[in-house]
Amino acid sequence: MTSSTTNTFEDQSVSFQGWASTGTANLKQWSYHPRPLGPEDVEIEISHCGICGSDIHTITSGWGELQHGPCIPGHEIVGKVVAKGAQSHHEIGDLVGAGAMVGACGECAQCKSGFDQLCAKMTLTYNSTYKDGRGGKTYGGYADRVRVHSEYVFKIPSEISAAEAAPLLCAGITSYAPLKQHGAGPGKTVGVIGIGGLGHLGIQWARAMNCDEVVAISTSDSKREESKKLGATKFVNVKNEEELKAASRSLDLVICSSYDKSQDFGKLLDLVAPRGTFVMLAAPEVPLTVPATALLMRQIALVGSLIGGKESVKEMLQFAADKNVRPWIVKMPMSDASAAVKHMMEGRPRYRVVMETKAAL
Amino acid sequence: MTSSTTNTFEDQSVSFQGWASTGTANLKQWSYHPRPLGPEDVEIEISHCGICGSDIHTITSGWGELQHGPCIPGHEIVGKVVAKGAQSHHEIGDLVGAGAMVGACGECAQCKSGFDQLCAKMTLTYNSTYKDGRGGKTYGGYADRVRVHSEYVFKIPSEISAAEAAPLLCAGITSYAPLKQHGAGPGKTVGVIGIGGLGHLGIQWARAMNCDEVVAISTSDSKREESKKLGATKFVNVKNEEELKAASRSLDLVICSSYDKSQDFGKLLDLVAPRGTFVMLAAPEVPLTVPATALLMRQIALVGSLIGGKESVKEMLQFAADKNVRPWIVKMPMSDASAAVKHMMEGRPRYRVVMETKAAL
Repeated sequence: MTSSTTNTFEDQSVSFQGWASTGTANLKQWSYHPRPLGPEDVEIEISHCGICGSDIHTITSGWGELQHGPCIPGHEIVGKVVAKGAQSHHEIGDLVGAGAMVGACGECAQCKSGFDQLCAKMTLTYNSTYKDGRGGKTYGGYADRVRVHSEYVFKIPSEISAAEAAPLLCAGITSYAPLKQHGAGPGKTVGVIGIGGLGHLGIQWARAMNCDEVVAISTSDSKREESKKLGATKFVNVKNEEELKAASRSLDLVICSSYDKSQDFGKLLDLVAPRGTFVMLAAPEVPLTVPATALLMRQIALVGSLIGGKESVKEMLQFAADKNVRPWIVKMPMSDASAAVKHMMEGRPRYRVVMETKAAL
Repeated sequence: MTSSTTNTFEDQSVSFQGWASTGTANLKQWSYHPRPLGPEDVEIEISHCGICGSDIHTITSGWGELQHGPCIPGHEIVGKVVAKGAQSHHEIGDLVGAGAMVGACGECAQCKSGFDQLCAKMTLTYNSTYKDGRGGKTYGGYADRVRVHSEYVFKIPSEISAAEAAPLLCAGITSYAPLKQHGAGPGKTVGVIGIGGLGHLGIQWARAMNCDEVVAISTSDSKREESKKLGATKFVNVKNEEELKAASRSLDLVICSSYDKSQDFGKLLDLVAPRGTFVMLAAPEVPLTVPATALLMRQIALVGSLIGGKESVKEMLQFAADKNVRPWIVKMPMSDASAAVKHMMEGRPRYRVVMETKAAL
């Protein structure tokens, strides 16, 4: 495939090479002209890109048809700065990352409150269009390079390797931000539903935040021992009625990183203590069936959470560096991106696939 | 009908006369022996009792079969103290009220935080059993008298008439508490879904709390003008797509006092601003269908709220007195309780039926 459209938003002098979807998980090599390098942009030579569940939902059209032609997914991007605009606040050679968003207005109430991910002009890293007046489509990190506004490019702390940094940019911030926002810490019993890419980090964050108890919640006993290694103090298999009952109403805060429609959502809500908070991180492709009485009788809050604002990302990276929170990763070559995606879809890697480009070598 | 069971929890020396359900809205006169007057109890000669939506759900078995035999409903109870235990903190002749709960442990974390309605030992005013060690069943206010622990008996401020006080004890606190808890006030745009018993008070509370905008939301244009009289600054008919669209994402806080399963819950959530709060007060008999993406993309909180704690009730009554918040009521004789219930079920009174006993005359 080659790019079939051109426009004034494209820098015709260069082509970036990526792996694109046209609506299925069968990715093909594809090139595009990036946007011109703006004064505040940096160009990243990508060495690593994690595979996020969102990538799968998007490229298989589970969240709807692709909106903007071929889609290069990937928003757990790490690499080195190889070019920069004059006003960019990064330096050539810096190890940096970019996550699930690459723009916001910076001026609205949400941006000013540190919730720029909720800005009406929030721009997703891929399968989207820029809303900053410069136009053009966005393409992600399953590629050799990417250009991103430096406000959404983050310096990777020296304690963290490039490969391990990648999943922090989406899985990391997505699981960190709601725990921080909703008061995880001493005195709290925190649950993590779904021990996968997000959840295995959620357990580590909650432990590092010194929560009284960290309860790993899964449909699979195979996660029991691993959860403890990650820092969980308890484990609940939701298929085990006794374990469910014993944990009933015990959790002050829950993050739910995985939900499939065969599960009884009411049973998950039963785990929440009075005035507790249940945070959905997963975006299942079907609506939730929520018994209102569960919310009423214990005044539970069912809240959504979406990645995190840029200041939260910086905080999260430093917290990971300080507290030794690291994803467990499986490395695969980006040159075989389709195989890596399939491994993610079928094999449930423990716990994150990170693809490497030639630049990683 | 007469009481067919006796036990040591009953004061055999007296009988209270009430109107009871055995699972349908067809109420019959029925008498019972109340519990012995405890040292902290008061006996109330009931002059007024409001008809709450919960009464209807309960007596028609919509929330499940009646658990404890014949049920005298009613938890918007007002009357005069006619007898008192030595340690009760009310006086003979006081005009007092009792609401939807009559007991809690007083010692747990919820009780100590002012959320005694969430106490594991919370005792509902009717169709329940005492959990205070003294045992016995609870019977409500569709009756001539009731005995209640004085902690859950509230002095009615002199500015409020007995009839108007009745609906405040449940509809009032149920709509007041979540607005107060979730920050209704200057700078906030507040929505009230369902302009009925709870909603018509919700509009008045929100106005009295000096919210910037108070948006009345209904399925019926017949509420448009009345909502404005109640203090609403805007009206949205949810069947009007244009009005819905214009109000999209505008509400910082919504209380939902009415929900029927034919409504698209996602459309109601669309009204909520980023990081806004949608509070369910209604307890529909079927689960809610909630699109998770709506919660995620704007980090909305879907929260339940259940009446309010006893300190909140006192605060609410004083606030109503000070700010001239009063229910709009239709008075009917309690001697015709079944007719009053049917009027509530069929006629959608504007906005609350309050039954009067002979003691009101």
